[in-house]
Parts: sequence; C-alpha cells; structure tokens
Amino acid sequence: MMVSTAKAVVYLSLCLCVCQVRGSHIPEKMNRTIQNLLRTYNIGALERYNGTPVFPREPLVDSMEKSHLSSAEKMTFMGGVLETYEKLLGQMLEQRPNLTPPTAGGREGLDSAANAVPGAGDDEVRTDLMYILGKIQDLKRHRYQEQSKLLQRLHDLGKVQMDDRTIQSKALGELPWLYAEASSLSSIKKQTRRRRRQARKVIGHQ
Amino acid sequence: MMVSTAKAVVYLSLCLCVCQVRGSHIPEKMNRTIQNLLRTYNIGALERYNGTPVFPREPLVDSMEKSHLSSAEKMTFMGGVLETYEKLLGQMLEQRPNLTPPTAGGREGLDSAANAVPGAGDDEVRTDLMYILGKIQDLKRHRYQEQSKLLQRLHDLGKVQMDDRTIQSKALGELPWLYAEASSLSSIKKQTRRRRRQARKVIGHQ
Repeated sequence: MMVSTAKAVVYLSLCLCVCQVRGSHIPEKMNRTIQNLLRTYNIGALERYNGTPVFPREPLVDSMEKSHLSSAEKMTFMGGVLETYEKLLGQMLEQRPNLTPPTAGGREGLDSAANAVPGAGDDEVRTDLMYILGKIQDLKRHRYQEQSKLLQRLHDLGKVQMDDRTIQSKALGELPWLYAEASSLSSIKKQTRRRRRQARKVIGHQ
Repeated sequence: MMVSTAKAVVYLSLCLCVCQVRGSHIPEKMNRTIQNLLRTYNIGALERYNGTPVFPREPLVDSMEKSHLSSAEKMTFMGGVLETYEKLLGQMLEQRPNLTPPTAGGREGLDSAANAVPGAGDDEVRTDLMYILGKIQDLKRHRYQEQSKLLQRLHDLGKVQMDDRTIQSKALGELPWLYAEASSLSSIKKQTRRRRRQARKVIGHQ
C-alpha cells in the first residue's frame, strides 16, 4: 500500500514537472497580460464554456481517437491558428477607441456600443493587445516561417480565376505533370513511413 | 572516348527508365482525354507559355534553390492543387451547354459568347471533363484524405468571426494553451529532425 502510494506521488510529481517544462513556453508577462485583457473582454462562464472553442484542439492532440496528423501537418495547422490570432488581434486593436490623436470618428470608432467610452484603462488595453500581437508575430516569424510560406501558397490557390478560359486551358495543360507528381508524392510518403519504422527498429535493437 | 559514350548512353537510358516509371502514374486514357480537351479549350502558344503557370511547380521541385518543404508539406500543397482542379473542372462543366434536358436558360448558359452553340462534340467534351474530374476525385479520396481534412480545418479558420466580442474573449482564453503548444511543437520538430539525422547515420554505418 505504502509502495503504491509512493509510486503515485512520484508519478504525479513527474507529471507536474513535465507540465511545468511544457508550460514554461508562455512567458509569465504574457500570461499576466492575457489575464488582464480577459477582465476587459469579460463574458459569462456559460458563453465561455459552451463546448465550441474558437480553435479546435483535436487536430493537435494525440489521443486514442487521434488526428493522424504528422508533426509537420500539425505545424501547418498551428501556422493557420497563429495567422488567425494575428488578424483577430488586429481587428481588436482597430475596434479600440484611439486616444492619441483625440479626433472623433474614423476607423477607430467601430464598436461604439460596447467599448467606445474612452476610460482610464483604454491606453493600457491597447498596449496589452499590442504586446500579445508582438508575441504572436515573433513566434510566427522565427519558428513558423516555412508554414507561413506554405499557407500563403494555399491562399494563392484560392485566387485562381475559375471562369477564365485561358486559365482553364493552361490548367488542363499542366495537369499531366501535376497528376503524375501527386501520385508519385503519395507513394514516396508511404515508402518514407516504412523506412522510418525500419530505422526505429534498428535503433531499438542496438 | 568509347567508354564515356557508352557510359552516357547507359545513364541516359537509366534516366529515361526512371522518367517512364514516374510518368507511369498517368493512365494512358487520361492523357488522351486531356489532349482531346485541349483541342476544344484551345489557346495560343503565346498565352500558354507566358511564364506564369496557374500552379507554380516551385514548391514541389527540389532544385538548388529548393522550397525547403518536407514531403508532408508538399502533399498539403498538392492537396490544395487537387482541390482547385476539382472546383475548376466543376466550373468548366457548369459552363458547358447542357444538352439533356434541352431546356434553354438556367445556369448552363453562362458562357454564351464562347461555347454556347451546342455542336456534335458537346456531349463528348462533357464526358471527357467528367472523366478527368473523376480521376482527380479518386486520387484525392484515396491518397490525400488526411490532407483534405487538414485543408478543411484551415478553411474553417478563415470563417472565425473576428468582430464578435464573445469570439474575441474566448480566443484570448484559449491563447495560453495554444501558444505553449505552438512553441513546444516547433521544438519537437527540431528534435525529430536531429533524431532522423542520427537514424540515417546509424543505418549508413551498418
């Protein structure tokens, strides 16, 4: 009994340690700033925990019904999440009443209903939002550079002019090479997976 | 001199063989159908080879100034290309005059200028377009399933309602976990790359 309790305690402390290490990636100041902002952007608990998060965790978490995404694919999704935060924080900044210069009207007065009474805390909220935006942009710039480029290329695909006859013809002409490449890529991926399994076995046997 | 020529011939035949194997992924019927369609969707050589392809090859090709995309990332991009072809072919089908039922008007008469004179070849063009669309959809369904799911998730991120106060607050609340995960993911990727290099060395030494 004593042994199993001790084991449980050791396991629990280990878990806490691991969580600490993983959690250490959020700078303390960032955490404090978010909590600060949450006091301004206050909503009811019922709204907050209504079971539909803005960003689903499912693609990022390896559970029993896991997402089957590789870490590269998870990073692509995460690149999209960071990009969305960037736009969202930009929008939130745009909705804040701008105190300097103090001219009325313009783009800054968008959410007159909820936030437009300029109080003492407004400049602070602005500073906090700018700080969080900076943290997101730093992470994106330094660790998600390739993902950002890939996402830009995917966005560009959305701009292809579908109803243009020249585009339609050119796309038909490009199809043989692309179709062959698409088939070959998916075969290479399968082979790579097999080779990686083999490599893991070799290391395991050593 | 003879030896080097023989060597060159062997090398060339080998290259041709490899190309053949890679090219074998396009079914002969598909290639023929595309050439058929290109006779209908005819444009001038100057337009076709104007230096701006619809789908850039650069992210897919490993050249000296290569794209640095992993094969998983290339497959994500290729998933986007297949998705675009699916929409494009859908649009092309929509623009064809529909011969059965032969009612005039409706969505089918969109490009009255270029294609709306129903000729003998119209049903054939329709059949050809349907066949190519089927091939794209088959490849997407069987080999790009995970990529399609990931792309859907990325599209969903584009629908986040940026100006909704509840969404803004919920997103702020979700940020600490996501930011930590984003930092940790990019570190894991670095470690995995290091481990893979190590595994390759181990296999190389055996």
